[in-house]
Amino acid sequence: MKSNSFAMGDTGIQRKLGTICIFGTGDFGRSLGLRLLQAGYGVVFGSRNPKDSSLLPKGTQVLSHAEAAQTAQVIFVAVHRENYDFLGQMAEGLAGKVLVDVSNNLKRNQYPESNAEYLSTLVPAASVVKAFNTVSAWALQSGGLDANRQVFVCGDQCEAKQMVVDIAHSLGLTALDRGSLRVAGEIEDYPLLLFPLWRLPMAIATGLTAAFFVYVLIQDVVYNAVVNGKDNSFRIMISLANKVFPIVSLIMLALCYLPGVIAAFLQLYNGTKYRRFPDWLDRWMLCRKQLGLVALALAFLHVLYTLIIPIRYYVRLRLNDWTISQIKRNKTETLDTTMAWRTDSYYSIGVLGFAFFVLLGITSLPSVSNAMNWREFRFVQSKLGHLTLLLCTAHTFLFGWDKFLRPYKWYIPPGYMLSLILPCIVLVLKLVLITPCVDRTVTRIRQGWERKPAGQAGVNGTTSSQPLML
Amino acid sequence: MKSNSFAMGDTGIQRKLGTICIFGTGDFGRSLGLRLLQAGYGVVFGSRNPKDSSLLPKGTQVLSHAEAAQTAQVIFVAVHRENYDFLGQMAEGLAGKVLVDVSNNLKRNQYPESNAEYLSTLVPAASVVKAFNTVSAWALQSGGLDANRQVFVCGDQCEAKQMVVDIAHSLGLTALDRGSLRVAGEIEDYPLLLFPLWRLPMAIATGLTAAFFVYVLIQDVVYNAVVNGKDNSFRIMISLANKVFPIVSLIMLALCYLPGVIAAFLQLYNGTKYRRFPDWLDRWMLCRKQLGLVALALAFLHVLYTLIIPIRYYVRLRLNDWTISQIKRNKTETLDTTMAWRTDSYYSIGVLGFAFFVLLGITSLPSVSNAMNWREFRFVQSKLGHLTLLLCTAHTFLFGWDKFLRPYKWYIPPGYMLSLILPCIVLVLKLVLITPCVDRTVTRIRQGWERKPAGQAGVNGTTSSQPLML
Amino acid sequence: MKSNSFAMGDTGIQRKLGTICIFGTGDFGRSLGLRLLQAGYGVVFGSRNPKDSSLLPKGTQVLSHAEAAQTAQVIFVAVHRENYDFLGQMAEGLAGKVLVDVSNNLKRNQYPESNAEYLSTLVPAASVVKAFNTVSAWALQSGGLDANRQVFVCGDQCEAKQMVVDIAHSLGLTALDRGSLRVAGEIEDYPLLLFPLWRLPMAIATGLTAAFFVYVLIQDVVYNAVVNGKDNSFRIMISLANKVFPIVSLIMLALCYLPGVIAAFLQLYNGTKYRRFPDWLDRWMLCRKQLGLVALALAFLHVLYTLIIPIRYYVRLRLNDWTISQIKRNKTETLDTTMAWRTDSYYSIGVLGFAFFVLLGITSLPSVSNAMNWREFRFVQSKLGHLTLLLCTAHTFLFGWDKFLRPYKWYIPPGYMLSLILPCIVLVLKLVLITPCVDRTVTRIRQGWERKPAGQAGVNGTTSSQPLML
Repeated sequence: MKSNSFAMGDTGIQRKLGTICIFGTGDFGRSLGLRLLQAGYGVVFGSRNPKDSSLLPKGTQVLSHAEAAQTAQVIFVAVHRENYDFLGQMAEGLAGKVLVDVSNNLKRNQYPESNAEYLSTLVPAASVVKAFNTVSAWALQSGGLDANRQVFVCGDQCEAKQMVVDIAHSLGLTALDRGSLRVAGEIEDYPLLLFPLWRLPMAIATGLTAAFFVYVLIQDVVYNAVVNGKDNSFRIMISLANKVFPIVSLIMLALCYLPGVIAAFLQLYNGTKYRRFPDWLDRWMLCRKQLGLVALALAFLHVLYTLIIPIRYYVRLRLNDWTISQIKRNKTETLDTTMAWRTDSYYSIGVLGFAFFVLLGITSLPSVSNAMNWREFRFVQSKLGHLTLLLCTAHTFLFGWDKFLRPYKWYIPPGYMLSLILPCIVLVLKLVLITPCVDRTVTRIRQGWERKPAGQAGVNGTTSSQPLML
Repeated sequence: MKSNSFAMGDTGIQRKLGTICIFGTGDFGRSLGLRLLQAGYGVVFGSRNPKDSSLLPKGTQVLSHAEAAQTAQVIFVAVHRENYDFLGQMAEGLAGKVLVDVSNNLKRNQYPESNAEYLSTLVPAASVVKAFNTVSAWALQSGGLDANRQVFVCGDQCEAKQMVVDIAHSLGLTALDRGSLRVAGEIEDYPLLLFPLWRLPMAIATGLTAAFFVYVLIQDVVYNAVVNGKDNSFRIMISLANKVFPIVSLIMLALCYLPGVIAAFLQLYNGTKYRRFPDWLDRWMLCRKQLGLVALALAFLHVLYTLIIPIRYYVRLRLNDWTISQIKRNKTETLDTTMAWRTDSYYSIGVLGFAFFVLLGITSLPSVSNAMNWREFRFVQSKLGHLTLLLCTAHTFLFGWDKFLRPYKWYIPPGYMLSLILPCIVLVLKLVLITPCVDRTVTRIRQGWERKPAGQAGVNGTTSSQPLML
Repeated sequence: MKSNSFAMGDTGIQRKLGTICIFGTGDFGRSLGLRLLQAGYGVVFGSRNPKDSSLLPKGTQVLSHAEAAQTAQVIFVAVHRENYDFLGQMAEGLAGKVLVDVSNNLKRNQYPESNAEYLSTLVPAASVVKAFNTVSAWALQSGGLDANRQVFVCGDQCEAKQMVVDIAHSLGLTALDRGSLRVAGEIEDYPLLLFPLWRLPMAIATGLTAAFFVYVLIQDVVYNAVVNGKDNSFRIMISLANKVFPIVSLIMLALCYLPGVIAAFLQLYNGTKYRRFPDWLDRWMLCRKQLGLVALALAFLHVLYTLIIPIRYYVRLRLNDWTISQIKRNKTETLDTTMAWRTDSYYSIGVLGFAFFVLLGITSLPSVSNAMNWREFRFVQSKLGHLTLLLCTAHTFLFGWDKFLRPYKWYIPPGYMLSLILPCIVLVLKLVLITPCVDRTVTRIRQGWERKPAGQAGVNGTTSSQPLML
């Protein structure tokens, strides 16, 4: 059987790599022990009940905590925080050891300080290193590790960290030094996150999609059923979807650039950048990237739904009907050049807008945005971003064309008109911001200049000396 | 001439950066020497035949190995492993030096230990660092270095590694510390790899594509030629391709999720997760990501082939014929609402499935998946993955609709029916796995619980104490 | 008010993290101070005018430079280089301190040596670390930091660097150690770059697009207006764009692979690889990736413009006319199998070419190309790259088909014919290079072999001994 290959644990390889101690015989401890054994380490478990070793990987030893601690320099503490007390009691025996805290909590901010810092106060003479908590027992066990191979490491002693980093490398993992033990809390919170920055954008997208779906359902399907008595509910699958997605996409693209504009006006109003933005604006600005990416996903759906139009059964039938009716009336439609210009411009601007949108999406990939400096990133996200918004808004205006003033069904305006409100606001405000005089003031404020209140005008001397300072 | 700019090798810059020694005047040695010279280092070659320096970059010195070794703290050993013997003989002269092993082998596992470790046993008093073997002489020479700028570094002495890392940075390369000298073997194998994890998926894709191509060729072209005497071989280029690609894509997507389901059932059967999976399953699980990406590429082709349908000459002609025949028969086809629902649903679900598929592909980009924690990765790859499989399977069922029971040409079923077998199996098994009672057992097993064989029921005490342990 | 939360600067957290000194009360100094305060550090400003602290964040102290320097081990020098003189005058008081140079210049190569190295000569007894210059004050201030969180760090003392890295981590930034202080100049230039490698490709793309736009405008619109008196200027938006984009894309793809081919022939001609390429070739080779990506973007536009063809008003009208005219003439067009083969092959090869093109684009993402070794990267970029060029060229040839010899409007050939010239040259040259005898010579040259000038034939001995060396 495959798992008996652990017998190799007794060979020379093991002696070369040294022995590692694991406190705790739970799932994570056993998985880690097995993996260490496979990598060529000797493994000694420390247990409250060293007699019972039935579950542990073959080739490992089980001793009492105190005895086990003597066998190795590095000790993994695979025990829940609630059971750390015994470590404080045996603190002397752990002096000089490297204690690796692998624990996680069930929820964020469960305890006042991080588990690793708590361990450090219990055993002050040991070097506590926080590591391995982002790797699951299942991942260690299955060997596949197709997911995250990154081990975040933090701790106050460099040598201790280096030992843990070496062990991670031996197990085929990548180690990332995150600094001193102070960041342990952050590392402990990390595995508990589930797309925190995506929640608000996803909620907005879901809400808007649902609302606009009902809106266009009433206009297209219900209206037709009530007024004309016709059932065109089949339009839900593609036609309605292809109305709702671009509407929500455009609104979310505007929502992505609105907070930046609001922030600039707030700074203009405050006359300084050294005043914090309100909380809601801070939170909003933090999820701009996610808002934009959700908008891009919806724009992608809009493009696909548009491109399949000509292969739809319904569309082919209608085109067919159109041709036949023309033949019957013995009349050929002539080319309306204005119509050709409008529709082609509408498609062309939409294509360009989508292309820039995809470019924005690509530059927001972590490895691409890391390869850009601040100046390049601002150029792409601000200049190209607003250009994209402008193109997509123009695309929607050309779609409407002369229909804006036509009478509405049941007096409610078509959905795409509603979708234009926010983008227009953003574009108008942005236009104000890039007029030379406003732009100059905003730039000065962002470079640190502050508008003095009336009473303090005399202290302006400091400001004038600023160009000498960064 | 440009290459004479090496004369600057005599200026102050060189003295500032110090001198580096290179043993070996082969291609790599010379390329490295030239590059070091350009970066401002002094370069001294050590050669068996120091008289002959005709090939070496101008501005460098050539001395005997022993003399050259005296000139520098860092010595690059650009010599084949078979010729390392002389290094053992001059071991005393190399004591305290940093020896950089840049060698590669011709095939994997050529020698029992890595070249760098072998060098380390030959010259135990030197600090051996493995580095630069992943950079080709051609890349060093051409200067472009548009490919991989990463230098993997490993070694047992930190200071020695730091010196080599500094040199790499001076040459405009990125250095990645991979740990102690033990991983040298892995680093030496690295440049020999050619997409090892992609081979099985590519072989499966090629095999399936070829098989299904012949299959649909017989059904569509050969059948027509034999039975109807018509030549529609032109259908090969698009129509047949657009049948084969989605079939293979769906099967490979199912193959991507099948091993996970098998693994869960194996664990249920074994009653433990502490037993290794059979080798074939391990290998299969390791290339799931690649299977999925090949499936995505084929789905992408399917989308493109579908979207160009309406601009095809053949399709336009057929639609034209259809219209004309209707006119001649003086009859208009009325809208079949069921048909409209079915085809629109078929397209719509396909679009959604493709969009989720693209999302899965994006999250498998290294920089994106590194930015996710284990919980997020599992959510995307497992939840969204199975949703994608479900959508794509539904898309195929809607394509078939009422044709499943129609008589087959030559009694062989259409290809898409065959493509549904595996996805259905995966989905049914997954459905079993997510029923509450099975799910609970699998979760417990994955958290470390083990089902006891009948005779050992008494030892259960350990299990009950587990919730206290990680 | 939110910004008053700085009062917490007086609590225990601050003492734990220690105090940091900032010289300079300009924008960057204040933004950094505020951020450090929020992270829990104590902050002391050093100023020429310590009385005036009106602009500084609450909770910080302002002292004279000399007094401030006594309070902390790490001193951020947020002062312009022109004002560094006072640091030289107080050099004694700064002995043993860590001076963090955060300065940037207004343009590249403004000074003979980097600011950080200059600072190091002024205060030789301090440890100078270059860092934080890539982070903008605005980014520090706004807290969002949605852009680049990377801090490049360089310096000659490891411990000093570690302190700065720890501070960066405390502020939620990622620190990248770039080596010794010598690279400070490079780090100082970094924030000034604005896509330097993209300029040439973008200029080429813009120039070619403009030239071909005028070219096809004359052929399609002007010709029709002059000769036929018809206005089809509406074709500009889609039809002309969809002619120009693929032409420019194909030319740029050829330009991406041309320099590699030229380089190989230059090496054949020189008989060695140890001679530098001419400057223009070097620069060309450096921007190959960007040339390829611009070509991909244009190909993407071409695909989108092609796929929207069937939903265009103009196209529908024309198809309609075609059907009606057939009916009127009472004649049905029969399927031309050659035509079906040609058009389907044309589309199919275009789709495959685009799919490979997208694959090339994906592999040029930093995180993907970093995950490949040199051999894999060469395989993808060279083998798949030339295959892509071949497919796209074949696609264009099939588009032309039998139109190559037809009389041209106004005796100027259609644009797509011009676009074929460069790709054909590249493919023919590549074909020459991969013939066995030429390939062998190129391979030998790239492995370091040199063709001897006639007079030196005797020294060939060295060459024959080379296989023993790397």
